[in-house]
Amino acid sequence: MRVLVLGGDGYLGWPTALHLSARGHEVSIVDNLVRRKFDDELGTQSLVPIFSLPERIAAWSRVSGSTIRHFVGDLVAFEFLTSVIGECRPEVIVHFGEQRSAPYSMIDRNHAVYTQVNNVVGTLNVLYAIAQADPSIHLVKLGTMGEYGTPNIDIEEGFIEITHKGRTDTLPFPKQPGSFYHLSKVHDSHNIAFACRTWSLRATDLNQGIVYGQETAETMMDPALATRFDYDAVFGTVLNRFVVQAITGRPLTVYGKGMQTRGMLNIRDTVACVEIALLNPPSAGEYRVFNQFTESYSLNEMADLVVDAIAGEHVIAHLPDPRVEAEEHYYRAAHTKLLDLGLSPHLLDGDVIRGLAHAVEPYRHRVVPSVMLPNVDWRNVQSDDTFDLSRESIESALSRQD
Amino acid sequence: MRVLVLGGDGYLGWPTALHLSARGHEVSIVDNLVRRKFDDELGTQSLVPIFSLPERIAAWSRVSGSTIRHFVGDLVAFEFLTSVIGECRPEVIVHFGEQRSAPYSMIDRNHAVYTQVNNVVGTLNVLYAIAQADPSIHLVKLGTMGEYGTPNIDIEEGFIEITHKGRTDTLPFPKQPGSFYHLSKVHDSHNIAFACRTWSLRATDLNQGIVYGQETAETMMDPALATRFDYDAVFGTVLNRFVVQAITGRPLTVYGKGMQTRGMLNIRDTVACVEIALLNPPSAGEYRVFNQFTESYSLNEMADLVVDAIAGEHVIAHLPDPRVEAEEHYYRAAHTKLLDLGLSPHLLDGDVIRGLAHAVEPYRHRVVPSVMLPNVDWRNVQSDDTFDLSRESIESALSRQD
Repeated sequence: MRVLVLGGDGYLGWPTALHLSARGHEVSIVDNLVRRKFDDELGTQSLVPIFSLPERIAAWSRVSGSTIRHFVGDLVAFEFLTSVIGECRPEVIVHFGEQRSAPYSMIDRNHAVYTQVNNVVGTLNVLYAIAQADPSIHLVKLGTMGEYGTPNIDIEEGFIEITHKGRTDTLPFPKQPGSFYHLSKVHDSHNIAFACRTWSLRATDLNQGIVYGQETAETMMDPALATRFDYDAVFGTVLNRFVVQAITGRPLTVYGKGMQTRGMLNIRDTVACVEIALLNPPSAGEYRVFNQFTESYSLNEMADLVVDAIAGEHVIAHLPDPRVEAEEHYYRAAHTKLLDLGLSPHLLDGDVIRGLAHAVEPYRHRVVPSVMLPNVDWRNVQSDDTFDLSRESIESALSRQD
Repeated sequence: MRVLVLGGDGYLGWPTALHLSARGHEVSIVDNLVRRKFDDELGTQSLVPIFSLPERIAAWSRVSGSTIRHFVGDLVAFEFLTSVIGECRPEVIVHFGEQRSAPYSMIDRNHAVYTQVNNVVGTLNVLYAIAQADPSIHLVKLGTMGEYGTPNIDIEEGFIEITHKGRTDTLPFPKQPGSFYHLSKVHDSHNIAFACRTWSLRATDLNQGIVYGQETAETMMDPALATRFDYDAVFGTVLNRFVVQAITGRPLTVYGKGMQTRGMLNIRDTVACVEIALLNPPSAGEYRVFNQFTESYSLNEMADLVVDAIAGEHVIAHLPDPRVEAEEHYYRAAHTKLLDLGLSPHLLDGDVIRGLAHAVEPYRHRVVPSVMLPNVDWRNVQSDDTFDLSRESIESALSRQD
């Protein structure tokens, strides 16, 4: 199929583009490269060195013989987007092109507004562009399990049948997101559902869990194909961070009681799920939601898994939770739809964790310990230009806490 | 109490400011006057002549002896907003300051993006400004009954207790909004709920029905105190439009089957409800929702009421529904919380409709019939600069349909 991957230079967008290309799809990438700029802003970088997008694409061409086209530009610029769609005539648009960090969205008002405007307007533009160019284009949109929050009932896949005062309807599952980033995804979900209902678009919303891992079959084929690996407190996902803390002899930083439980999945499952979604499109007008994760773990369970898997003495440090969230809660979420369509999960175990450690071990000299400490406090309300993650402030935080 | 009314120059913001001032509150107004600019864009104007904001305020001072301060500026400009809050030190912020028309938001992509960015960023700024200035400020935010859509179960006030697979939780009522405007209100609701949870703000979300009427006790005291009266297909609310169609001998334009049922309320109840909310504030951290309407009517029932109330022969014309909505549906929505706090509703009857006709009758020579015809089609996807509501296009539409 002809596939346009929005955000195709990112942590998951890039391996997804490779995976789809390897499976014979005709892949094009759109990216504004802003994720690389966030590194500069935050004073961080991918632990595993990543190559420029043109270098990545040239390497893929060399290794696979397949061509990936790329377009550098912003989804917020509607004319850019429509011109790309006109040129690529995609059958599927896979939309990773959003600001994806909860802590980043909570830095201050500027970052909250940026996150919501960027994500909501980008997605509105995608919806209008599809409706105008070809309403049969299948939108595969990355959402998050964090849209649901932690209700005291089982989480279903997007919708729930409710019987109330003797009547029954199937309605959108109530959302209780926990950051301005997660809120932006909820806003997107409502906008997309409306566009499907109103313009007969077709969309799959992948409510993804927390992804771990750095290698896929394709990214391992050449160093220039590596995807980024974030271990910092703003963009790093929790299991990846724990592994880096473990291999560098640092305390594993668990927020609060550590009973917070979340859906998790291996990066190899992310790329597989996206292909499953695009090979099994919804009907015209259908807005469907898949919960894209394979297992649930609490923070404590994850920390214990890492401690057990990686040789050496490890300390688990419980820090005050910088987030406002339930530290103990019920958590049970359905995730059968992708399994029913054929997903074979890569489950988490000691071997997987050691494999991850092995993959990042060569780059341990690049680790900056201070960036692993939580530096964005949900309760600390800041308006503008108050975020200071300069190396000096990090070192000073480090000397206090580490 | 010290009250800041955002959007205090609008259809409802202005009479609310007057009502609160008459009841002894210390009222200040913020408005960017953009609603008056929409008139220019759309080639419409309030049927009842309205005075400039300074003239209105001077008249109120003359009539009542009370002072209302006003600040002209945009909520999207954070520093303006914080400086106003710093100067007024409000105990309550009543937030009418949003683009409030569903058809306007559906004109094209530009108007959809404008509506969502303006409303969402404006409200984010209000939340940040409150959190920084004084988290005890009570935010009274205007939402809409249209956030809920038309589920096949009873609509509750903001939250619903759900029992699912043997467990029970009270969760946000699922939302199925029907336009990019209504979606913006859903986005606001989620953002506000989050801010209450995270920063211990206190907020009342007034999910208001469709308002009719033009006169309140205060606006009747002087012609310069009149609030606007919109009867056009973009900003005019349905009952107001039916009355103008009836008194000018035009067909009452019902969209589709006319079985669409909505919650309604008199403008006098809007101003009363806002004061009830502010006199009965929620606790710190509480996000509460009141469904602010008094009666439900279908479009057909409203048209029949108007036909019966106003002397003469009237024609009811069923036009193809320009909106994408269920034309027949179950509708039953709770609205007891404001009644429990003391609201005495002004219910709709023939006398009320004749009173409304009487109020606008002196201005019937200002009626432009063409602006009452639906000119925004939900299904017609337009990107930019394609909206043509010039007088010529309106006349041409008129010659075809009228």
